[in-house]
Amino acid sequence: MKLGLIQMKVSEDKAANIEKACQMIEKACEMGADMAVLPEMFNCPYDNKYFREYAEDSSGITIESIKKIAVEKGIYVVAGSIPEIDGNDVYNTSFVLDPKGEIIARHRKMHLFDIDVKDGIRFFESETLSPGEDVAVFETPFGKVGLAICYDMRFPELMRLIALKGAKLIVIPAAFNRTTGPAHWKMTAKTRALDNQVYFAAVSPAVDWNATYNAYGHTIFVDPWGRVVDELDDGEGLLVCELENELIEKVRKELPLMKHRRTDLYEIIFKGDGM
Amino acid sequence: MKLGLIQMKVSEDKAANIEKACQMIEKACEMGADMAVLPEMFNCPYDNKYFREYAEDSSGITIESIKKIAVEKGIYVVAGSIPEIDGNDVYNTSFVLDPKGEIIARHRKMHLFDIDVKDGIRFFESETLSPGEDVAVFETPFGKVGLAICYDMRFPELMRLIALKGAKLIVIPAAFNRTTGPAHWKMTAKTRALDNQVYFAAVSPAVDWNATYNAYGHTIFVDPWGRVVDELDDGEGLLVCELENELIEKVRKELPLMKHRRTDLYEIIFKGDGM
Repeated sequence: MKLGLIQMKVSEDKAANIEKACQMIEKACEMGADMAVLPEMFNCPYDNKYFREYAEDSSGITIESIKKIAVEKGIYVVAGSIPEIDGNDVYNTSFVLDPKGEIIARHRKMHLFDIDVKDGIRFFESETLSPGEDVAVFETPFGKVGLAICYDMRFPELMRLIALKGAKLIVIPAAFNRTTGPAHWKMTAKTRALDNQVYFAAVSPAVDWNATYNAYGHTIFVDPWGRVVDELDDGEGLLVCELENELIEKVRKELPLMKHRRTDLYEIIFKGDGM
Repeated sequence: MKLGLIQMKVSEDKAANIEKACQMIEKACEMGADMAVLPEMFNCPYDNKYFREYAEDSSGITIESIKKIAVEKGIYVVAGSIPEIDGNDVYNTSFVLDPKGEIIARHRKMHLFDIDVKDGIRFFESETLSPGEDVAVFETPFGKVGLAICYDMRFPELMRLIALKGAKLIVIPAAFNRTTGPAHWKMTAKTRALDNQVYFAAVSPAVDWNATYNAYGHTIFVDPWGRVVDELDDGEGLLVCELENELIEKVRKELPLMKHRRTDLYEIIFKGDGM
Protein backbone atom coordinates (compact mmCIF):
# COMPACT_ATOMS: atom_id res chain seq x y z
CA MET A 1 0.00 0.00 0.00
CA LYS A 2 1.13 3.53 -0.74
CA LEU A 3 0.32 6.51 1.43
CA GLY A 4 0.03 10.07 0.15
CA LEU A 5 0.78 12.60 2.88
CA ILE A 6 -0.55 16.03 1.99
CA GLN A 7 1.12 19.09 3.47
CA MET A 8 -1.24 21.78 2.19
CA LYS A 9 -1.40 25.44 3.08
CA VAL A 10 -4.65 26.32 4.82
CA SER A 11 -6.21 29.74 4.31
CA GLU A 12 -9.25 31.60 5.64
CA ASP A 13 -11.15 30.65 2.49
CA LYS A 14 -12.91 27.39 3.30
CA ALA A 15 -13.97 26.66 -0.28
CA ALA A 16 -10.41 27.19 -1.49
CA ASN A 17 -9.10 24.87 1.23
CA ILE A 18 -11.50 22.11 0.18
CA GLU A 19 -10.59 22.60 -3.46
CA LYS A 20 -6.88 22.42 -2.69
CA ALA A 21 -7.37 19.28 -0.59
CA CYS A 22 -9.20 17.62 -3.50
CA GLN A 23 -6.54 18.67 -6.00
CA MET A 24 -3.77 17.30 -3.83
CA ILE A 25 -5.66 14.04 -3.23
CA GLU A 26 -5.95 13.74 -6.99
CA LYS A 27 -2.23 14.33 -7.36
CA ALA A 28 -1.43 11.76 -4.66
CA CYS A 29 -3.62 9.31 -6.54
CA GLU A 30 -1.74 9.98 -9.77
CA MET A 31 1.49 9.26 -7.90
CA GLY A 32 0.15 5.86 -6.89
CA ALA A 33 -1.24 6.49 -3.41
CA ASP A 34 -3.94 4.12 -2.16
CA MET A 35 -4.63 6.29 0.86
CA ALA A 36 -4.34 10.06 1.20
CA VAL A 37 -3.93 11.83 4.54
CA LEU A 38 -4.79 15.50 5.03
CA PRO A 39 -3.49 17.68 7.89
CA GLU A 40 -5.25 18.81 11.06
CA MET A 41 -7.86 21.55 10.51
CA PHE A 42 -7.41 21.46 6.74
CA ASN A 43 -10.56 23.48 6.03
CA CYS A 44 -10.09 26.13 8.73
CA PRO A 45 -7.21 28.22 10.09
CA TYR A 46 -5.92 26.81 13.35
CA ASP A 47 -7.25 29.52 15.64
CA ASN A 48 -9.95 29.31 18.32
CA LYS A 49 -11.80 32.24 16.81
CA TYR A 50 -12.60 30.27 13.65
CA PHE A 51 -13.49 26.80 14.93
CA ARG A 52 -17.17 27.34 15.67
CA GLU A 53 -17.74 29.46 12.58
CA TYR A 54 -16.15 26.86 10.26
CA ALA A 55 -17.66 23.84 12.00
CA GLU A 56 -19.77 21.32 10.07
CA ASP A 57 -20.95 17.79 10.62
CA SER A 58 -20.14 14.86 8.37
CA SER A 59 -22.93 15.81 5.98
CA GLY A 60 -21.42 19.27 5.41
CA ILE A 61 -19.71 20.51 2.26
CA THR A 62 -16.22 19.55 3.46
CA ILE A 63 -16.72 15.85 4.06
CA GLU A 64 -19.16 15.61 1.13
CA SER A 65 -16.47 16.98 -1.17
CA ILE A 66 -13.83 14.60 0.17
CA LYS A 67 -16.27 11.71 -0.15
CA LYS A 68 -16.82 12.61 -3.79
CA ILE A 69 -13.12 12.65 -4.66
CA ALA A 70 -12.53 9.41 -2.70
CA VAL A 71 -15.16 7.64 -4.81
CA GLU A 72 -14.08 9.29 -8.06
CA LYS A 73 -10.44 8.29 -7.55
CA GLY A 74 -11.10 5.02 -5.69
CA ILE A 75 -8.89 6.02 -2.78
CA TYR A 76 -8.99 5.90 1.01
CA VAL A 77 -8.88 9.37 2.54
CA VAL A 78 -8.04 10.25 6.14
CA ALA A 79 -9.70 13.63 6.05
CA GLY A 80 -7.19 15.33 8.35
CA SER A 81 -9.44 17.06 10.78
CA ILE A 82 -12.18 19.66 10.71
CA PRO A 83 -14.05 21.50 13.43
CA GLU A 84 -17.09 19.23 13.83
CA ILE A 85 -20.33 20.52 15.29
CA ASP A 86 -22.50 18.15 17.32
CA GLY A 87 -25.35 19.82 19.16
CA ASN A 88 -23.69 22.72 20.92
CA ASP A 89 -20.27 21.08 21.05
CA VAL A 90 -17.39 21.56 18.62
CA TYR A 91 -14.84 18.77 18.24
CA ASN A 92 -11.52 18.52 16.41
CA THR A 93 -12.52 15.52 14.32
CA SER A 94 -11.00 13.27 11.70
CA PHE A 95 -13.27 11.28 9.38
CA VAL A 96 -11.97 8.42 7.26
CA LEU A 97 -13.56 7.68 3.88
CA ASP A 98 -13.14 4.44 2.00
CA PRO A 99 -13.10 4.21 -1.82
CA LYS A 100 -16.87 3.68 -1.77
CA GLY A 101 -17.37 6.92 0.07
CA GLU A 102 -18.35 5.29 3.34
CA ILE A 103 -17.18 6.86 6.60
CA ILE A 104 -15.32 3.91 8.14
CA ALA A 105 -13.80 5.69 11.12
CA ARG A 106 -14.04 8.85 13.15
CA HIS A 107 -11.68 10.19 15.78
CA ARG A 108 -12.37 13.21 17.92
CA LYS A 109 -9.14 14.61 19.38
CA MET A 110 -8.91 13.08 22.83
CA HIS A 111 -6.24 15.31 24.38
CA LEU A 112 -6.95 19.00 23.96
CA PHE A 113 -3.95 21.20 23.32
CA ASP A 114 -3.75 23.60 26.26
CA ILE A 115 -0.24 24.91 26.66
CA ASP A 116 1.45 28.14 27.63
CA VAL A 117 5.19 28.15 27.00
CA LYS A 118 6.91 31.37 28.08
CA ASP A 119 8.40 33.23 25.09
CA GLY A 120 6.97 30.46 22.92
CA ILE A 121 3.40 29.41 22.24
CA ARG A 122 0.14 29.91 24.13
CA PHE A 123 -2.96 28.06 22.90
CA PHE A 124 -5.99 26.68 24.73
CA GLU A 125 -8.16 24.46 22.55
CA SER A 126 -10.42 23.86 25.52
CA GLU A 127 -11.63 27.45 25.21
CA THR A 128 -13.71 26.34 22.21
CA LEU A 129 -13.39 22.60 21.71
CA SER A 130 -14.72 19.53 23.49
CA PRO A 131 -12.58 16.40 23.84
CA GLY A 132 -13.35 13.05 22.24
CA GLU A 133 -13.10 9.67 23.87
CA ASP A 134 -12.63 7.05 21.19
CA VAL A 135 -9.63 4.93 20.24
CA ALA A 136 -9.92 4.77 16.45
CA VAL A 137 -8.64 1.87 14.38
CA PHE A 138 -9.97 0.94 10.95
CA GLU A 139 -9.45 -1.83 8.42
CA THR A 140 -7.69 -1.45 5.09
CA PRO A 141 -6.31 -3.97 2.59
CA PHE A 142 -2.86 -3.33 4.13
CA GLY A 143 -4.11 -4.13 7.61
CA LYS A 144 -5.38 -2.12 10.55
CA VAL A 145 -4.66 1.59 10.72
CA GLY A 146 -4.84 3.68 13.89
CA LEU A 147 -5.82 7.33 13.96
CA ALA A 148 -5.28 10.16 16.43
CA ILE A 149 -4.81 13.91 16.18
CA CYS A 150 -1.75 16.05 16.93
CA TYR A 151 -1.38 16.47 20.71
CA ASP A 152 -2.81 12.94 21.11
CA MET A 153 0.51 11.61 19.82
CA ARG A 154 2.24 12.88 22.96
CA PHE A 155 0.46 10.31 25.09
CA PRO A 156 2.10 6.89 25.03
CA GLU A 157 -1.00 5.29 26.53
CA LEU A 158 -3.19 6.16 23.53
CA MET A 159 -0.50 5.15 21.06
CA ARG A 160 -0.14 1.80 22.85
CA LEU A 161 -3.92 1.24 22.96
CA ILE A 162 -4.01 1.77 19.20
CA ALA A 163 -1.14 -0.68 18.68
CA LEU A 164 -2.83 -3.23 20.94
CA LYS A 165 -5.91 -3.02 18.74
CA GLY A 166 -3.69 -4.34 15.96
CA ALA A 167 -2.65 -1.24 14.04
CA LYS A 168 0.32 -1.61 11.71
CA LEU A 169 0.27 2.06 10.83
CA ILE A 170 -0.69 5.09 12.92
CA VAL A 171 -1.71 8.26 11.08
CA ILE A 172 -1.70 11.60 12.84
CA PRO A 173 -3.17 14.71 11.24
CA ALA A 174 -1.31 17.35 13.22
CA ALA A 175 -0.20 20.97 13.43
CA PHE A 176 2.75 21.41 15.76
CA ASN A 177 4.11 24.95 15.99
CA ARG A 178 7.49 26.73 15.82
CA THR A 179 8.17 26.12 19.54
CA THR A 180 7.16 22.51 20.08
CA GLY A 181 7.84 21.42 16.50
CA PRO A 182 11.63 21.83 16.43
CA ALA A 183 11.85 20.56 20.01
CA HIS A 184 9.60 17.48 19.95
CA TRP A 185 8.00 16.58 16.61
CA LYS A 186 10.56 14.24 15.09
CA MET A 187 11.67 12.50 18.28
CA THR A 188 8.09 11.77 19.28
CA ALA A 189 7.17 10.42 15.83
CA LYS A 190 10.24 8.19 15.77
CA THR A 191 9.77 6.82 19.28
CA ARG A 192 6.06 6.08 18.81
CA ALA A 193 6.87 4.08 15.66
CA LEU A 194 9.70 2.22 17.36
CA ASP A 195 7.92 1.51 20.66
CA ASN A 196 4.80 0.21 18.97
CA GLN A 197 6.52 -1.45 16.01
CA VAL A 198 4.31 0.34 13.50
CA TYR A 199 4.67 2.76 10.63
CA PHE A 200 3.93 6.27 11.79
CA ALA A 201 2.78 9.12 9.53
CA ALA A 202 2.27 12.61 10.94
CA VAL A 203 0.86 15.18 8.53
CA SER A 204 1.02 18.93 9.07
CA PRO A 205 -0.30 21.90 7.15
CA ALA A 206 2.36 23.99 5.40
CA VAL A 207 3.36 27.08 7.34
CA ASP A 208 1.36 30.26 6.72
CA TRP A 209 3.39 33.19 8.05
CA ASN A 210 0.34 35.46 7.80
CA ALA A 211 -1.70 33.29 10.14
CA THR A 212 -1.88 33.73 13.92
CA TYR A 213 -0.63 30.14 14.34
CA ASN A 214 2.45 29.17 12.34
CA ALA A 215 2.48 25.44 11.70
CA TYR A 216 5.80 23.62 11.86
CA GLY A 217 5.19 21.58 8.72
CA HIS A 218 7.74 18.76 8.48
CA THR A 219 5.23 16.06 7.56
CA ILE A 220 7.06 12.85 8.41
CA PHE A 221 6.94 9.14 7.68
CA VAL A 222 8.73 6.75 10.06
CA ASP A 223 9.20 2.99 9.77
CA PRO A 224 8.81 0.45 12.61
CA TRP A 225 12.56 0.53 13.35
CA GLY A 226 12.18 4.24 14.14
CA ARG A 227 13.90 5.39 10.94
CA VAL A 228 12.66 8.52 9.17
CA VAL A 229 11.83 7.23 5.68
CA ASP A 230 10.92 10.64 4.30
CA GLU A 231 9.98 14.11 5.50
CA LEU A 232 9.13 17.54 4.14
CA ASP A 233 10.31 21.01 5.08
CA ASP A 234 7.59 23.57 5.92
CA GLY A 235 6.33 24.53 2.47
CA GLU A 236 3.46 22.95 0.58
CA GLY A 237 4.24 19.44 -0.60
CA LEU A 238 3.29 15.82 -0.96
CA LEU A 239 5.03 12.66 0.23
CA VAL A 240 4.16 9.32 -1.32
CA CYS A 241 5.45 6.49 0.88
CA GLU A 242 5.26 2.74 0.67
CA LEU A 243 4.25 0.45 3.52
CA GLU A 244 5.85 -2.99 3.68
CA ASN A 245 4.29 -5.71 5.77
CA GLU A 246 7.56 -7.66 5.55
CA LEU A 247 9.45 -4.94 7.41
CA ILE A 248 6.92 -4.91 10.24
CA GLU A 249 7.23 -8.68 10.56
CA LYS A 250 11.04 -8.50 10.45
CA VAL A 251 11.30 -5.83 13.15
CA ARG A 252 8.74 -7.56 15.37
CA LYS A 253 10.68 -10.80 15.06
CA GLU A 254 14.18 -9.36 15.57
CA LEU A 255 13.35 -6.89 18.36
CA PRO A 256 10.10 -8.21 19.85
CA LEU A 257 9.18 -5.20 21.97
CA MET A 258 5.44 -5.76 21.82
CA LYS A 259 5.91 -9.40 22.81
CA HIS A 260 8.33 -8.54 25.64
CA ARG A 261 5.86 -6.30 27.45
CA ARG A 262 5.44 -7.65 31.01
CA THR A 263 1.68 -8.01 30.83
CA ASP A 264 1.88 -10.23 33.90
CA LEU A 265 3.00 -7.11 35.79
CA TYR A 266 1.26 -4.19 34.07
CA GLU A 267 -1.54 -3.45 31.70
CA ILE A 268 -3.14 -0.44 30.07
CA ILE A 269 -6.85 -0.43 30.74
CA PHE A 270 -9.25 1.46 28.48
CA LYS A 271 -12.29 2.66 30.37
CA GLY A 272 -14.21 4.38 27.57
CA ASP A 273 -17.01 3.06 25.35
CA GLY A 274 -15.51 4.03 22.02
CA MET A 275 -12.99 1.21 21.70
CA MET B 1 21.74 18.05 43.35
CA LYS B 2 24.56 17.00 41.08
CA LEU B 3 24.77 13.63 39.38
CA GLY B 4 28.01 11.91 38.41
CA LEU B 5 27.52 9.55 35.48
CA ILE B 6 30.35 7.06 35.23
CA GLN B 7 31.17 5.56 31.84
CA MET B 8 33.83 3.06 32.90
CA LYS B 9 35.45 0.32 30.89
CA VAL B 10 34.60 -3.12 32.25
CA SER B 11 37.16 -5.94 32.01
CA GLU B 12 37.26 -9.64 32.90
CA ASP B 13 39.04 -8.76 36.15
CA LYS B 14 36.34 -8.29 38.75
CA ALA B 15 38.62 -6.79 41.40
CA ALA B 16 39.95 -4.26 38.88
CA ASN B 17 36.39 -3.35 37.87
CA ILE B 18 35.42 -2.71 41.48
CA GLU B 19 38.56 -0.65 42.06
CA LYS B 20 37.93 1.43 38.96
CA ALA B 21 34.30 2.01 39.99
CA CYS B 22 35.46 3.24 43.40
CA GLN B 23 38.10 5.52 41.87
CA MET B 24 35.61 7.06 39.50
CA ILE B 25 33.04 7.53 42.27
CA GLU B 26 35.75 9.34 44.21
CA LYS B 27 36.47 11.53 41.20
CA ALA B 28 32.75 12.27 40.71
CA CYS B 29 32.63 13.27 44.35
CA GLU B 30 35.59 15.64 43.91
CA MET B 31 33.73 17.21 41.00
CA GLY B 32 30.78 17.93 43.26
CA ALA B 33 28.46 14.99 42.59
CA ASP B 34 25.93 14.11 45.30
CA MET B 35 24.97 10.89 43.54
CA ALA B 36 27.11 8.64 41.35
CA VAL B 37 25.66 6.23 38.81
CA LEU B 38 27.59 3.22 37.50
CA PRO B 39 26.77 1.36 34.28
CA GLU B 40 25.02 -1.98 33.77
CA MET B 41 27.15 -5.01 34.71
CA PHE B 42 30.00 -2.85 35.95
CA ASN B 43 31.78 -5.72 37.69
CA CYS B 44 31.38 -8.33 34.94
CA PRO B 45 31.72 -8.43 31.15
CA TYR B 46 28.32 -8.32 29.49
CA ASP B 47 28.24 -11.92 28.27
CA ASN B 48 25.99 -14.78 29.35
CA LYS B 49 28.98 -17.02 29.98
CA TYR B 50 30.16 -14.81 32.86
CA PHE B 51 26.97 -13.90 34.69
CA ARG B 52 26.67 -16.94 36.98
CA GLU B 53 30.40 -17.08 37.67
CA TYR B 54 30.57 -13.39 38.65
CA ALA B 55 27.29 -13.38 40.56
CA GLU B 56 27.14 -12.25 44.20
CA ASP B 57 24.45 -11.14 46.58
CA SER B 58 24.34 -7.76 48.30
CA SER B 59 26.76 -8.97 50.98
CA GLY B 60 29.41 -9.83 48.37
CA ILE B 61 32.65 -7.97 47.75
CA THR B 62 31.19 -5.74 45.03
CA ILE B 63 28.37 -4.10 46.97
CA GLU B 64 30.43 -4.10 50.18
CA SER B 65 33.14 -2.12 48.38
CA ILE B 66 30.65 0.35 46.94
CA LYS B 67 29.01 0.71 50.34
CA LYS B 68 32.39 1.58 51.84
CA ILE B 69 33.14 4.31 49.33
CA ALA B 70 29.58 5.70 49.63
CA VAL B 71 30.05 6.12 53.38
CA GLU B 72 33.62 7.38 53.06
CA LYS B 73 32.65 10.04 50.53
CA GLY B 74 29.14 10.71 51.86
CA ILE B 75 27.56 10.12 48.47
CA TYR B 76 24.54 8.29 47.04
CA VAL B 77 25.56 5.52 44.64
CA VAL B 78 23.36 3.80 42.10
CA ALA B 79 25.54 0.74 41.78
CA GLY B 80 24.89 0.20 38.07
CA SER B 81 24.07 -3.45 37.96
CA ILE B 82 25.73 -6.72 38.86
CA PRO B 83 24.76 -10.33 38.31
CA GLU B 84 22.96 -11.10 41.57
CA ILE B 85 22.60 -14.65 42.86
CA ASP B 86 19.48 -15.56 44.83
CA GLY B 87 19.10 -19.27 45.47
CA ASN B 88 19.58 -20.82 42.07
CA ASP B 89 18.50 -17.70 40.17
CA VAL B 90 20.72 -15.01 38.71
CA TYR B 91 19.28 -11.50 38.24
CA ASN B 92 20.59 -8.37 36.56
CA THR B 93 20.30 -6.18 39.63
CA SER B 94 20.92 -2.60 40.63
CA PHE B 95 21.42 -1.73 44.31
CA VAL B 96 21.26 1.86 45.56
CA LEU B 97 23.38 2.92 48.53
CA ASP B 98 22.80 6.06 50.55
CA PRO B 99 25.61 8.06 52.21
CA LYS B 100 25.16 5.98 55.36
CA GLY B 101 25.79 2.79 53.41
CA GLU B 102 22.19 1.59 53.62
CA ILE B 103 20.69 -0.19 50.61
CA ILE B 104 17.69 2.04 49.97
CA ALA B 105 16.50 0.49 46.69
CA ARG B 106 16.94 -2.55 44.52
CA HIS B 107 15.80 -3.12 40.97
CA ARG B 108 16.05 -6.42 39.17
CA LYS B 109 15.86 -5.91 35.40
CA MET B 110 12.23 -6.51 34.53
CA HIS B 111 12.47 -6.92 30.76
CA LEU B 112 15.13 -9.38 29.70
CA PHE B 113 17.06 -8.49 26.57
CA ASP B 114 16.32 -11.22 24.04
CA ILE B 115 16.90 -9.97 20.55
CA ASP B 116 18.22 -11.32 17.28
CA VAL B 117 18.78 -8.66 14.64
CA LYS B 118 20.01 -10.05 11.31
CA ASP B 119 23.53 -8.77 10.50
CA GLY B 120 23.43 -6.95 13.84
CA ILE B 121 23.22 -8.25 17.38
CA ARG B 122 22.03 -11.55 18.89
CA PHE B 123 21.77 -11.80 22.68
CA PHE B 124 19.42 -13.77 24.93
CA GLU B 125 19.67 -12.76 28.58
CA SER B 126 16.95 -15.27 29.38
CA GLU B 127 19.45 -18.07 28.71
CA THR B 128 21.04 -17.28 32.08
CA LEU B 129 19.05 -14.56 33.86
CA SER B 130 15.70 -14.43 35.63
CA PRO B 131 13.49 -11.34 35.34
CA GLY B 132 12.58 -9.04 38.22
CA GLU B 133 9.20 -7.62 38.98
CA ASP B 134 9.63 -4.44 41.00
CA VAL B 135 9.05 -0.80 40.09
CA ALA B 136 11.88 0.94 41.95
CA VAL B 137 11.66 4.50 43.21
CA PHE B 138 13.70 5.89 46.11
CA GLU B 139 13.91 9.11 48.08
CA THR B 140 16.76 11.59 47.92
CA PRO B 141 17.13 15.21 49.10
CA PHE B 142 16.38 16.26 45.49
CA GLY B 143 13.16 14.26 45.40
CA LYS B 144 12.14 10.83 44.21
CA VAL B 145 14.38 8.96 41.78
CA GLY B 146 13.24 6.06 39.60
CA LEU B 147 15.49 3.20 38.57
CA ALA B 148 15.39 0.64 35.78
CA ILE B 149 17.96 -1.21 33.70
CA CYS B 150 18.78 -0.92 30.00
CA TYR B 151 16.14 -2.76 27.95
CA ASP B 152 13.56 -1.72 30.59
CA MET B 153 13.76 1.82 29.20
CA ARG B 154 12.17 0.62 25.96
CA PHE B 155 8.86 0.02 27.70
CA PRO B 156 6.77 3.16 28.12
CA GLU B 157 4.56 1.42 30.65
CA LEU B 158 7.39 0.95 33.17
CA MET B 159 8.70 4.47 32.59
CA ARG B 160 5.20 5.85 33.21
CA LEU B 161 4.70 3.74 36.34
CA ILE B 162 7.95 5.18 37.70
CA ALA B 163 6.84 8.74 36.88
CA LEU B 164 3.44 8.11 38.49
CA LYS B 165 5.24 7.09 41.68
CA GLY B 166 6.58 10.63 41.75
CA ALA B 167 10.04 10.35 40.22
CA LYS B 168 11.66 13.59 39.06
CA LEU B 169 14.67 11.75 37.69
CA ILE B 170 14.96 8.32 36.11
CA VAL B 171 18.38 6.64 36.12
CA ILE B 172 19.13 3.78 33.79
CA PRO B 173 22.32 1.75 34.07
CA ALA B 174 22.48 0.37 30.55
CA ALA B 175 24.62 -1.21 27.86
CA PHE B 176 23.16 -0.72 24.41
CA ASN B 177 25.25 -2.11 21.55
CA ARG B 178 26.55 -0.97 18.16
CA THR B 179 23.31 -1.97 16.40
CA THR B 180 20.59 -0.67 18.70
CA GLY B 181 22.69 2.14 20.17
CA PRO B 182 23.05 4.34 17.08
CA ALA B 183 19.47 3.52 16.05
CA HIS B 184 17.55 3.97 19.29
CA TRP B 185 19.52 5.11 22.35
CA LYS B 186 19.25 8.88 22.12
CA MET B 187 15.69 9.09 20.78
CA THR B 188 14.40 6.78 23.49
CA ALA B 189 16.19 8.68 26.28
CA LYS B 190 14.88 12.01 24.99
CA THR B 191 11.30 10.84 24.58
CA ARG B 192 11.13 9.17 28.01
CA ALA B 193 12.31 12.40 29.64
CA LEU B 194 9.87 14.50 27.65
CA ASP B 195 6.83 12.20 28.01
CA ASN B 196 7.26 11.82 31.75
CA GLN B 197 8.52 15.36 32.44
CA VAL B 198 11.56 14.08 34.31
CA TYR B 199 15.32 14.24 34.05
CA PHE B 200 16.65 11.07 32.44
CA ALA B 201 20.18 9.72 32.88
CA ALA B 202 21.30 6.60 31.00
CA VAL B 203 24.76 5.34 31.86
CA SER B 204 26.73 2.91 29.70
CA PRO B 205 30.08 1.18 30.05
CA ALA B 206 32.80 2.46 27.71
CA VAL B 207 33.27 0.29 24.65
CA ASP B 208 35.73 -2.60 24.90
CA TRP B 209 36.58 -3.71 21.38
CA ASN B 210 38.18 -6.90 22.72
CA ALA B 211 34.96 -8.02 24.41
CA THR B 212 32.31 -10.22 22.77
CA TYR B 213 29.73 -7.45 23.38
CA ASN B 214 30.71 -3.95 22.29
CA ALA B 215 28.84 -1.37 24.33
CA TYR B 216 27.62 1.76 22.58
CA GLY B 217 28.75 4.12 25.33
CA HIS B 218 27.17 7.55 24.82
CA THR B 219 26.14 8.04 28.45
CA ILE B 220 23.49 10.73 28.23
CA PHE B 221 21.70 13.24 30.43
CA VAL B 222 18.37 14.67 29.21
CA ASP B 223 16.22 17.36 30.77
CA PRO B 224 12.39 17.30 31.15
CA TRP B 225 11.93 19.28 27.90
CA GLY B 226 13.67 16.41 26.06
CA ARG B 227 16.91 18.35 25.52
CA VAL B 228 20.23 16.54 25.69
CA VAL B 229 22.11 18.47 28.39
CA ASP B 230 25.31 16.49 28.02
CA GLU B 231 26.58 13.23 26.57
CA LEU B 232 29.79 11.27 26.13
CA ASP B 233 31.28 9.44 23.16
CA ASP B 234 32.20 5.78 23.67
CA GLY B 235 35.47 6.05 25.61
CA GLU B 236 35.89 6.11 29.36
CA GLY B 237 34.59 9.30 30.94
CA LEU B 238 32.56 11.05 33.57
CA LEU B 239 29.66 13.50 33.27
CA VAL B 240 28.72 15.70 36.19
CA CYS B 241 25.25 17.18 35.66
CA GLU B 242 23.03 19.42 37.70
CA LEU B 243 19.35 18.80 38.42
CA GLU B 244 17.07 21.81 38.76
CA ASN B 245 13.71 21.46 40.43
CA GLU B 246 12.69 24.81 38.92
CA LEU B 247 13.01 23.47 35.39
CA ILE B 248 10.80 20.48 36.16
CA GLU B 249 8.17 22.80 37.61
CA LYS B 250 8.42 25.17 34.62
CA VAL B 251 8.03 22.41 32.04
CA ARG B 252 5.18 20.76 33.92
CA LYS B 253 3.39 24.10 34.11
CA GLU B 254 3.97 25.21 30.52
CA LEU B 255 3.38 21.85 28.82
CA PRO B 256 1.34 19.85 31.35
CA LEU B 257 1.58 16.43 29.73
CA MET B 258 1.29 14.46 32.94
CA LYS B 259 -1.77 16.47 33.92
CA HIS B 260 -3.37 16.13 30.48
CA ARG B 261 -3.39 12.33 30.57
CA ARG B 262 -7.00 11.17 30.07
CA THR B 263 -7.15 9.09 33.22
CA ASP B 264 -10.94 9.09 32.90
CA LEU B 265 -10.40 6.98 29.76
CA TYR B 266 -7.25 4.94 30.37
CA GLU B 267 -4.99 3.87 33.16
CA ILE B 268 -1.84 1.82 33.62
CA ILE B 269 -2.41 -0.87 36.22
CA PHE B 270 0.50 -2.43 38.09
CA LYS B 271 -0.25 -6.01 39.09
CA GLY B 272 2.98 -6.93 40.90
CA ASP B 273 3.80 -6.82 44.60
CA GLY B 274 6.99 -4.81 44.34
CA MET B 275 5.44 -1.38 43.86
